[in-house]
Amino acid sequence: MAKGKNKQLLALENLGKDIVKQIKKGKNPEIAIPIRALSNIKFDEKTKTVQLGSKVSARYFFHIAHAKKFLQTLEVAAISHNLIKDGKHASLRDVFYMAKRTIPGTKVNLVDDQPESDSVIEDLELVTDQSREQLNVNANKNGSVAGKVVIEDKGDTIDWSKLGSGGWSIPSNVEDIKFKKVTAKYILYMEKAAVWERLHEDKFWEKQNCIIMSSQGQTTRGIRRLLQRLTKEHKLPIYVLTDLDSWGHYIYSVIRFGSINLAHISGKMAIPSVRFLGITTNDIEKYKLEKHLIKFKDTDLSRLKQIQNYAWFKDNKAWQKEFAALKKLGAKAEIQALSSKGISFISEKYLPEKIKNKDFID
Amino acid sequence: MAKGKNKQLLALENLGKDIVKQIKKGKNPEIAIPIRALSNIKFDEKTKTVQLGSKVSARYFFHIAHAKKFLQTLEVAAISHNLIKDGKHASLRDVFYMAKRTIPGTKVNLVDDQPESDSVIEDLELVTDQSREQLNVNANKNGSVAGKVVIEDKGDTIDWSKLGSGGWSIPSNVEDIKFKKVTAKYILYMEKAAVWERLHEDKFWEKQNCIIMSSQGQTTRGIRRLLQRLTKEHKLPIYVLTDLDSWGHYIYSVIRFGSINLAHISGKMAIPSVRFLGITTNDIEKYKLEKHLIKFKDTDLSRLKQIQNYAWFKDNKAWQKEFAALKKLGAKAEIQALSSKGISFISEKYLPEKIKNKDFID
Repeated sequence: MAKGKNKQLLALENLGKDIVKQIKKGKNPEIAIPIRALSNIKFDEKTKTVQLGSKVSARYFFHIAHAKKFLQTLEVAAISHNLIKDGKHASLRDVFYMAKRTIPGTKVNLVDDQPESDSVIEDLELVTDQSREQLNVNANKNGSVAGKVVIEDKGDTIDWSKLGSGGWSIPSNVEDIKFKKVTAKYILYMEKAAVWERLHEDKFWEKQNCIIMSSQGQTTRGIRRLLQRLTKEHKLPIYVLTDLDSWGHYIYSVIRFGSINLAHISGKMAIPSVRFLGITTNDIEKYKLEKHLIKFKDTDLSRLKQIQNYAWFKDNKAWQKEFAALKKLGAKAEIQALSSKGISFISEKYLPEKIKNKDFID
Repeated sequence: MAKGKNKQLLALENLGKDIVKQIKKGKNPEIAIPIRALSNIKFDEKTKTVQLGSKVSARYFFHIAHAKKFLQTLEVAAISHNLIKDGKHASLRDVFYMAKRTIPGTKVNLVDDQPESDSVIEDLELVTDQSREQLNVNANKNGSVAGKVVIEDKGDTIDWSKLGSGGWSIPSNVEDIKFKKVTAKYILYMEKAAVWERLHEDKFWEKQNCIIMSSQGQTTRGIRRLLQRLTKEHKLPIYVLTDLDSWGHYIYSVIRFGSINLAHISGKMAIPSVRFLGITTNDIEKYKLEKHLIKFKDTDLSRLKQIQNYAWFKDNKAWQKEFAALKKLGAKAEIQALSSKGISFISEKYLPEKIKNKDFID
């Protein structure tokens, strides 16, 4: 069993012991759970991350509206406890199936749909102050990484610079990885696997002595944790490369500030030091990409307005300028539009130039 | 430049030379292109794969309806020729941006939308008899692999059994990989990354001496080619593990028989020797999964009927029996339903038992 696991077991056992204590005192057993809703979310100016407020609600056993959720909470806590004891990890879907059973003496299922068990796992993160990964429940696996880094994982020594055209496949849980040797100087994270393959073929990470990392679309929790650990433990700057659109901006926003859903875990997930590298509205003129703009649809404009009003962007002049420019442009652009200038334009000119000039939006 | 690349350059150059020859003869230049449509698709009983028929259509330069497509074909051929010469690979999206330019002296773009350049690449596969991968155009990257196999790729030696919890990230193009040592005895391919992580944590590939491979959802061309190369070059049986639903059956169908879209390339992609391992309707009763069935929606039933009528399933008694049983069941089941029997039930009981008893649908 990996070091530090006892902490998780203890946290879960404390939850159980506390309830036993309440029962022995003849009380209606309750679990206090911080409220995860927009009404209890705030942007913390000090840490520059999305944080949960202090509102808490009690979940009672003897309460028509609470009883089932109360049971679900204890059941999932028991499942997690077993997983940790056995040194095994389950997916969210696995946990749902493990929790789905008939409550003895009734015809009622303990859970009927996965959102019920998912929500309880998030509650447990709060109650135990352990992340889902620490409770041995994994999210989806996705993404690849390459660069001058040597890690140790499950007894294997893995050199991220010696994995051919594929790279290392990032697992959903990176908590137990040990960084043995980190020679790379920064991390370039991108939203598209195809761009990663382009940069990898051009040996961008070797020429620039950096790490290239990618998912496909949304950033998985495994990747966010890997980014955070690398920047915390090895002080590596992180640059984010996305399309010029609100989806790209949101990917950046989640990595940097945290997300509303996971506000309770921002400390473990948000990375206030990341910088947005591109594509920016300035790039369009500078690199003559006008021809490759994709006109806004209504949804693009409404999403832009939403993001523009996020508390963490509201008072940021650089970003408000960018949002206004994007609105004026009325169009999006993809990273791959750079290929119109030549297949390796991105790795030979665009990226080195932007990074050298520190041409970021901060 | 890797061995065999000259073949691709020659094929593209022959296309160009043929057109020059026609022009010198004063002919209206034409390119003959086999028709890719359901009307020209047949199921070949000998190879047991979906194949293109013999219908061909001519694409003329001096023809109002053909001129643009004719130009697109030559433009994309030139792009591919350059990529091969430079030893670089582009994604479909890259090729679109590279081809998107104004035709000199007009205000007309050579291509306006990606489906135009995508379709021309498929034409070129037919005209040159080279796959998209051989023309240095890559599809999406996805998926992971682990097992007792050592490969050589881009000068790196990579041991699939020594890559920690992540595994090797499968690239979009596996044509140049060399298999140095293949100790594994079979391949288990699954549609879900979470199931792959389960089996990987349980060291299933080590205990069973097999390869575990997974994408997330649809099977990428890179994975299909990797599966095909392993089974052709090393005679490894392949077992497919999917959910019990029409989506899972279709994943199996595409791997085994090829797809309608890519019928022209079935020889390079289809793998008639793969076997469907599960989940099957029989498993539901045998492993007591009734509680975890998910009731059919209308779309599930209509998709089932479609697949049931595919030429390659129509006369297959085992599959028709399975389709009928699924229809009678009126419900689907997921691989992860097995987790309700214990987190490692799948790796310790379900899979070893099914594989030992050769409990496949063929």
